[in-house]
Amino acid sequence: MSNPIQLYDTTLRDGTQRRGISLSVEDKLQITKLLDEFGFDYIEGGWPASNPKDTAFFKSAGRYVKHAKITAFGSTRRRGVFVDSDVNLRAILDAECPAATLFGKSSVFQATKILGLSLEENLAMVEESVQFLRNHGLEVIFDAEHFFDGCQEDLSYALDVLKAAENGGADWIVLCDTNGGSLPDQVREFVGQARNVVTVPLGIHAHNDGGLAVANSLAAVQAGVSMVQGTINGYGERCGNANLCTIWPNLVYKMKLSAGNEAMLRELTRLSRTVAEIANLIPDDSAPFVGDNAFTHKAGVHVGAVRKYPEAYEHIRPEQVGQTRRILVSELAGRSNLLYHFQNLDASSETVKELVQTVKRMEARGYQYEDAPSSMKLLVERSLGHVPVYFDVDRFHASVTHDQRTIAEATVRIVVGEDHFVEVGEGDGPVHALDAALRRALTQIYPVIEGLRLKDYKVRVLDGRDGTRALVRVWIRSEFRDETVQTVGVSRNILEASWLALLDSVNYVLWISHAVPAINEHQLRPSK
Amino acid sequence: MSNPIQLYDTTLRDGTQRRGISLSVEDKLQITKLLDEFGFDYIEGGWPASNPKDTAFFKSAGRYVKHAKITAFGSTRRRGVFVDSDVNLRAILDAECPAATLFGKSSVFQATKILGLSLEENLAMVEESVQFLRNHGLEVIFDAEHFFDGCQEDLSYALDVLKAAENGGADWIVLCDTNGGSLPDQVREFVGQARNVVTVPLGIHAHNDGGLAVANSLAAVQAGVSMVQGTINGYGERCGNANLCTIWPNLVYKMKLSAGNEAMLRELTRLSRTVAEIANLIPDDSAPFVGDNAFTHKAGVHVGAVRKYPEAYEHIRPEQVGQTRRILVSELAGRSNLLYHFQNLDASSETVKELVQTVKRMEARGYQYEDAPSSMKLLVERSLGHVPVYFDVDRFHASVTHDQRTIAEATVRIVVGEDHFVEVGEGDGPVHALDAALRRALTQIYPVIEGLRLKDYKVRVLDGRDGTRALVRVWIRSEFRDETVQTVGVSRNILEASWLALLDSVNYVLWISHAVPAINEHQLRPSK
Repeated sequence: MSNPIQLYDTTLRDGTQRRGISLSVEDKLQITKLLDEFGFDYIEGGWPASNPKDTAFFKSAGRYVKHAKITAFGSTRRRGVFVDSDVNLRAILDAECPAATLFGKSSVFQATKILGLSLEENLAMVEESVQFLRNHGLEVIFDAEHFFDGCQEDLSYALDVLKAAENGGADWIVLCDTNGGSLPDQVREFVGQARNVVTVPLGIHAHNDGGLAVANSLAAVQAGVSMVQGTINGYGERCGNANLCTIWPNLVYKMKLSAGNEAMLRELTRLSRTVAEIANLIPDDSAPFVGDNAFTHKAGVHVGAVRKYPEAYEHIRPEQVGQTRRILVSELAGRSNLLYHFQNLDASSETVKELVQTVKRMEARGYQYEDAPSSMKLLVERSLGHVPVYFDVDRFHASVTHDQRTIAEATVRIVVGEDHFVEVGEGDGPVHALDAALRRALTQIYPVIEGLRLKDYKVRVLDGRDGTRALVRVWIRSEFRDETVQTVGVSRNILEASWLALLDSVNYVLWISHAVPAINEHQLRPSK
Repeated sequence: MSNPIQLYDTTLRDGTQRRGISLSVEDKLQITKLLDEFGFDYIEGGWPASNPKDTAFFKSAGRYVKHAKITAFGSTRRRGVFVDSDVNLRAILDAECPAATLFGKSSVFQATKILGLSLEENLAMVEESVQFLRNHGLEVIFDAEHFFDGCQEDLSYALDVLKAAENGGADWIVLCDTNGGSLPDQVREFVGQARNVVTVPLGIHAHNDGGLAVANSLAAVQAGVSMVQGTINGYGERCGNANLCTIWPNLVYKMKLSAGNEAMLRELTRLSRTVAEIANLIPDDSAPFVGDNAFTHKAGVHVGAVRKYPEAYEHIRPEQVGQTRRILVSELAGRSNLLYHFQNLDASSETVKELVQTVKRMEARGYQYEDAPSSMKLLVERSLGHVPVYFDVDRFHASVTHDQRTIAEATVRIVVGEDHFVEVGEGDGPVHALDAALRRALTQIYPVIEGLRLKDYKVRVLDGRDGTRALVRVWIRSEFRDETVQTVGVSRNILEASWLALLDSVNYVLWISHAVPAINEHQLRPSK
């Protein structure tokens, strides 16, 4: 049975309108898989007509979903064109999705002044376009653009547009606050008006220009809509779309309505952070529910109370959205976190105390282990003396020379016991060259390294205000057999930061595969 | 005559509970002056009893305000202590402010479990403390902490607390959603209940844990409160306090209520940015009304419309809050964006057609011009033949060597006419070293380059799935005289990408300053 409130995500289409976001096809597929896992009901993939990236996405997207319906977005037919020869509508059919989302104007001003249409023509465009896709077997969602502004200008015409969509056979009619300036009372009133004239199930699509996208979405639900459109982290043009990471927990925990996969709601924070990571945007620390500060208490009046009664200063339990409570100016947060992650540690031991100090010191230097569990694991296991020293790096050198063309070259000198290995690598850039040289040296000693595949490489400049002197954090994701290896390195020198993250990756792989040198009888010494 | 809605700012007290904020006395006084200039009615300065910083603030604050009342914050008297010997209440008197804000519990759970009080004792503490300050001539604002949660637990007791404050002579009773988890409907309902039992004017104090602080504040105003407490940029503990930069324009422009100095509302963005700068926090680009993206348009469809009718995709005019419209150049847009930026271009000319193709080609290679207007400008002006070739790069070389310690070094060979310049630079990393070498060479030819200051450096890995072979986009922001220079470079080689962005910065500066070589009679050749 389907949930009473359907979650409709448009991160991949409206979300990418946010300044600074640009998603590759791979990024989009990764997000699709994630949204499906979290039980989102509809995933709007893009405009099939607009660019080749979206075409490539629609080719593969269906294979990434078990529950969600992928929907293709596009406008109603152009003026003076028959539906079956309209390029956009054809492109939607070619996308071969189970559902399509068509947008059309539901405002007199928009139809006449912006599109230069007669009011009748606009209605015909809506009805015929919906009908065309419906006749081709698609589930059709009609986005009534500028609906709330349209109601203020000319209520009866705005409602006529909804009726045209219903006559065309729309499965859903979504009321859009396109400019994001409506107040919750207006939303409630006009949703009521819409319910009086159509029987098709309704949805809401809100923007945050007045800071009210979440409130407007919830007000629409109270007034009777059963689909909420929005984006992860509220990404979107101008001030963003309605934030599904805020709306979803409000629907479930506050309004007691079913939506999405509620078991997964308890991992909401991971969803938010992963999408931010893919979009390469810094997460908002103050975001409701999922922000780093959402359950963070500064030392003072609140802390004592929260320790005794969490509900004293928390509106829900952090675990309900995959968060943990943090208390600042206190070692408790770090310690309990560590103990949570490494349950074999003895809580009272000196090692744990030292570890907390080490982690704090590394974090102060710019390290962040949340997205680098392999580096974290190495750090802990090394401090416990569990990780041998597999090799020493005597020297590395990387250079880029531009002279007619650009050449990147690197050399490394690796020592294992009595043996040393000097190797050179070439690459598209200096990090690629370093990686090549390191692998070339190491596979002679540890053939297992051949199974390590580099998958993703990210760079974040911390405190860029020092210009090219800035501190840089490099994050590397690799795969080794069935395991994902995620490591981090920090330095003012981008090549050194990359080198540190690379070293962690190979050391982690050597450790989990219990590697021993293939080249001599050398006994590895412990790390501590 | 005072405004029907009083704006009460607690940035200096509740705002500083945000993780990462720490304000000096000077900072606080600067913000006070600003808030007064913008017509805020009350400015909560801090806890006079809590620390010497706040004591110093209260000594001077009165001199910084013409309109606003400074208020001192503190709790009701302790249990079992007479009001006139209570340290906190004494400290409030010593602050010598015209107003005081006292907080007390209006929830059975909070009074009995957290403070361990009997219900009667809690009521007595509220009434006596308010009365004490009132008798000393202060205007008294009573903050009913946990009011909305309290109403859900035991409505009649929550209302009894308000009556106690009224009996004590409170001038204002402020209803607090301390944990930030209430919904607008609950706020509306319980404000109504409060109005039934007290005649004192009411206020609202909302937190944003459910993403509804703004909506809850506006709902309370609709239900009859006449004071709104909040902070600039929504700073505050956890997910923050209600954001006055969002509430104020909503009150005035949407709800048509008078509040603050409305002439100054047209400079709201300056208020937000200045406070962010003083607090040393990066402004939120997506913030409603004041964010950098709030009136930024990216979609091609929208851009054409906005050029003709700004109201097509803008809920208010940017000037109403001290903003300007921005149009981004991006893959989703095209001709209309370009024409908006370069209004001297002839829309129908071949050049424009070619330019659109060039931009698309560059974007397909990973370039993104929306945050690199200087690179965009160079591209356009070069294609029009307006930019001379200031110098040629014969060769550059950058290297990083790790051998005991890590060293970064770079060399460049620059040619201008018959002359060549070979220079070397050192740095924390290879980009820093390249920058140093390039500057050293160029300032000999073009001394104006000395005025170029690098301010920010960002790296984005595009499609990191190629691992260390990934395409990299580098973005550099510099300052030159009063102008911000923003450029971009793309390559699979991070040093080459950085180099390209650096070259654009210096070329842009040479171009806007009409530079000529200082070293010889060399005639610069055109770029096309």
